[in-house]
Amino acid sequence: MPTESLLSQLIESLRCLPGVGPKSAQRMALHLLERNREGGLQLAAVLADAMQKIGRCTRCRNLTELEICSLCANPRRDDSQLCVVESPVDVLAIEQATAYSGRYFVLLGRLSPLDGIGPAELGLDQLAERLEHSAPKEMIIATNPTVEGEATSYYLQRMAKSHNIHITRIAHGVPLGGELEYTDQSTLAHAFGSRLAIDE
Amino acid sequence: MPTESLLSQLIESLRCLPGVGPKSAQRMALHLLERNREGGLQLAAVLADAMQKIGRCTRCRNLTELEICSLCANPRRDDSQLCVVESPVDVLAIEQATAYSGRYFVLLGRLSPLDGIGPAELGLDQLAERLEHSAPKEMIIATNPTVEGEATSYYLQRMAKSHNIHITRIAHGVPLGGELEYTDQSTLAHAFGSRLAIDE
Repeated sequence: MPTESLLSQLIESLRCLPGVGPKSAQRMALHLLERNREGGLQLAAVLADAMQKIGRCTRCRNLTELEICSLCANPRRDDSQLCVVESPVDVLAIEQATAYSGRYFVLLGRLSPLDGIGPAELGLDQLAERLEHSAPKEMIIATNPTVEGEATSYYLQRMAKSHNIHITRIAHGVPLGGELEYTDQSTLAHAFGSRLAIDE
Repeated sequence: MPTESLLSQLIESLRCLPGVGPKSAQRMALHLLERNREGGLQLAAVLADAMQKIGRCTRCRNLTELEICSLCANPRRDDSQLCVVESPVDVLAIEQATAYSGRYFVLLGRLSPLDGIGPAELGLDQLAERLEHSAPKEMIIATNPTVEGEATSYYLQRMAKSHNIHITRIAHGVPLGGELEYTDQSTLAHAFGSRLAIDE
């Protein structure tokens, strides 16, 4: 089958999705064509729309099609709390899992000088300005517990200290439902070191 | 985040792809938005095009955007061989793996009376007409070696016999690179039963 056929083009295009190889792309193309053309058409429309319209929220740097995202625009959210995360998926995860009702700031990355990602790339000047003017009471650092995430967290702590803001970091330790036996050594060591007093 | 945001819509729409759950859809949406907007736009365009234009080849029932697919239209392919497969992916697989240069007929399913799939749904009347008029010399049955595939194969054999056509079935047995130890019992039994003479 010559590569110019529309079916081959579709299979080839589907491979731009992460984790989709040639066989999955074939399966996806055939599935849409044989069983869900309507879904495929709708996906095409939303995809084109999203790629063209979604930009960054001017306030929190989250992905949004608006100038100011719905979380920043919502007047019922608490201005006194600011949660700093690495990526828009982290915002989604926190929104889905917790009852947090404060504001967010999305770094869109983590400090990694070797890759050319410094404070400017993470919008930290914008964050500093925000701490200056809107002055939240608490800054919750929710960067990932990786080496770069920890470095970023440390940088943020120093920034917040100079503004006299209460700084917190989300807890790291043994996950719920996990077993000590199968928890990796560094997590277990961290959980042990960060043990909390039980006040009964 | 309210479900109306374009990002949420995109994540939701991506879930129409087979094998894509909420987490994969998030990852795909973020990947396209942050790293490959051009690929996303192109996918949207090809997807819309494919969903609207791809239909069935009037001759072999394969998926194509043309009235007669490129394989049927190609004058350099051998009219004396006709390979019958269940699905368009099978055509792709055979084209990619073999040097077969004959024609195809795509059943788009397999006989399964309980699911309401009989000879008419598989276009077997169209196939009978084709055997009558273009009269290939060999019909290669390449349905899958499942219960329904075998039933379909048996039906096809009876059809072809009445037209005095040489009938072949692709070989089933231990896959290349496979080990007898790990081959399932029915495959091994079949391979044993279908052993071939080695003529030196």
